[in-house]
Amino acid sequence: VERIAAALRVAFPQRSGEPLDDAAVIEGNFSSLLLCVDAAVEGVHVDVGRFPAGDLGFRATVAALSDLAAMGGRALGVVVAICARADADVMELEAGAIEACVASGCAVVGGNLSVAPTTSVAVSALGEAPPGGAVRRGGARAGDALFVTGPLGGSAAGLRRRRDGAALDDRLVAVHRRPVPRLHEGALAARSGATAMIDVSDGLARDARRLAAAGEVGLELRDVPVAEGATLDDALGGGEDYELVIAHREPALLLAAFADAGLRSPIAIGVVHGDPGVARLDGSELVDVGWRHGAPGAQEPR
Amino acid sequence: VERIAAALRVAFPQRSGEPLDDAAVIEGNFSSLLLCVDAAVEGVHVDVGRFPAGDLGFRATVAALSDLAAMGGRALGVVVAICARADADVMELEAGAIEACVASGCAVVGGNLSVAPTTSVAVSALGEAPPGGAVRRGGARAGDALFVTGPLGGSAAGLRRRRDGAALDDRLVAVHRRPVPRLHEGALAARSGATAMIDVSDGLARDARRLAAAGEVGLELRDVPVAEGATLDDALGGGEDYELVIAHREPALLLAAFADAGLRSPIAIGVVHGDPGVARLDGSELVDVGWRHGAPGAQEPR
Repeated sequence: VERIAAALRVAFPQRSGEPLDDAAVIEGNFSSLLLCVDAAVEGVHVDVGRFPAGDLGFRATVAALSDLAAMGGRALGVVVAICARADADVMELEAGAIEACVASGCAVVGGNLSVAPTTSVAVSALGEAPPGGAVRRGGARAGDALFVTGPLGGSAAGLRRRRDGAALDDRLVAVHRRPVPRLHEGALAARSGATAMIDVSDGLARDARRLAAAGEVGLELRDVPVAEGATLDDALGGGEDYELVIAHREPALLLAAFADAGLRSPIAIGVVHGDPGVARLDGSELVDVGWRHGAPGAQEPR
Repeated sequence: VERIAAALRVAFPQRSGEPLDDAAVIEGNFSSLLLCVDAAVEGVHVDVGRFPAGDLGFRATVAALSDLAAMGGRALGVVVAICARADADVMELEAGAIEACVASGCAVVGGNLSVAPTTSVAVSALGEAPPGGAVRRGGARAGDALFVTGPLGGSAAGLRRRRDGAALDDRLVAVHRRPVPRLHEGALAARSGATAMIDVSDGLARDARRLAAAGEVGLELRDVPVAEGATLDDALGGGEDYELVIAHREPALLLAAFADAGLRSPIAIGVVHGDPGVARLDGSELVDVGWRHGAPGAQEPR
C-alpha cells in the first residue's frame, strides 16, 4: 500500500502542487456548483477479461463528467476513489481516470485508495453551472423540439464486437472504450436556452423516458440516429453512448449556436408531447428497454 | 434495482427538492472550495458480521467530512456512491450516510447505486475553505505548539470490546461506531491561526508523522491523551478517532478561541521540532505504527 500510495502521489497531484492535503483546494469565483458521482465495478460495468483495467477508470470518469454535461456545466475537477483487489493494476486504473479528465480539459484533484475484494472506481465530479443556471432534467414542455448530440448505439455495438473477438483498437470497440462526455455541447445548449437535458447512459428509450417523466410530459420520437455498425436496438437500449438529449423551445437558436461553434449539428429526434402517457417512436409505442447494471432480471440488450 | 432506485429517490433527495437531476446544484457565493473522497469497504473497514450495514455508510461519510475539518472547511454537501451486493440493505447503508451528515449539519445531495460482488461506500465531500484560506497539512514550523482536539484510542478500544462480545450500544463500542468529524473545531482552529492540521484517521503516530513530513519538520510529543478504556497503543496506532492534530504558533489564541466558543479545550501534546529526523514521544523514539487498511503485512494493532 505504501508503494501504491507513492504511485498515487505521483499520479494524483494536488492542484496546488503542495504535499498531499486532506482535501483538494479549488480557487475561483463560483455562485452555482454542480456535484455528482458515478461508479464502475469490474464484472458489472467493465468485463475485465476483455478490457484493460484503465477502461474502468476511464469509463467511471466519463460517466461523472457526462452528468455535468447534462446540466450544461463546466468541469472543475474530479476526485477518484479506487477500491482495488490486491492484484489490481492501480496505476492503470488511475491512468484511465486521468486520461478521461485530460481529454475533457479538467483534472483529477484528489483520490482515495482502499484494498477490496472487488475492484471498483467511484468518481465524483465538481462543476460550475452555466451562467443562466443549470439545465434541469424536468424542464421540457409540450411542443419543445428534441435533439440528440450524435448517433447512438455505438457503445453497445462495440462491446458486442469485442465479445465476438475484435481487437481493442477496432474502430467500434474504441467507441465503446473511449466515450466522450459532451461538455462543450451541454454548455452550448444551456447557453442557447435548452429547456431540459439528460445524457444517454442507459439507452435512449430509458433516458428519454426519464426526461419526460421528470417534466411530466410525453415523447413523440422519430428518426433516431443509429451509429454506423449499430442497430436500432443498440441505440434504444444499449446505453453508455453519453450523447446528450436536448429539449429546446427554439430549435433554430440551438442549431445556430452549434454551427457558430463549429460543433456537429444536433440531430432532431422528435417533439415533446403534452400527455405524459404518450411515449412513441415512429408512431408506435416506444419500447421500455435499457441497460440496468447487473440488476437481477434486467434486460441486457448487449 | 428499480425498487432500490425508488428508495434512493426518497433517501437522497436533491437539495432542490425537484426530480432527480444528473447532478446536484449547490447555490452560494464561493471563492475557495474543498473536495475530497473516502471509501469504506465491507470486511476491510467494517466487520459486517459484527456491525450493522449502516455503520459502513456512517463511517465513510465521517471520514470524508473529517478531511474537510482538517482543512478548516465548512461542509456544503456530500455525494454517496454505493456499490452493493444483491442482498445488501441499501436503505440502511444510505441511512448511515444521511445520519452522519445530519449530525454534522450538512446533507447528502446526490448518490449513485451499483450492484457489485462486494459492498462498499465511497463518499465525496464538498466544502468551503475558511475565510483565511484552507489550513494545509504542511504549514507547521519549528516551535509551533501541537494540540489534539480530544483523547485518542477510543475507536480501537471500542472495536476490541465489540470483538470481545460487547453489545452495539456499549459506550466504547458506540465511540467506535459513531465518530464525530471535528468541523467546528477545525473551522475555529483555522480562524485562530492554526499553521497546519491533520485528522487522526490512522493513529496519532502515523498521522503526526505525516503532518511533520509534509512540513519537513520533526515532532517532540509528550502526554498523549488516551481515551478512557483505551491504551496508549490504541491512541498511537488505532486510528479512526477523527480528532484533529493542530499546529499553532500562538497557543493562547487557539485556547481562547475554543474557550469563547464553549468547546472542549484542545489538549497540548508537544511541539514541532526543527529537525525533520526527530520524532519523539516522552523523550523516546515515536513508534511508527498505524492502521493500513487491508494492506498485506500491515501492522494492525487492533
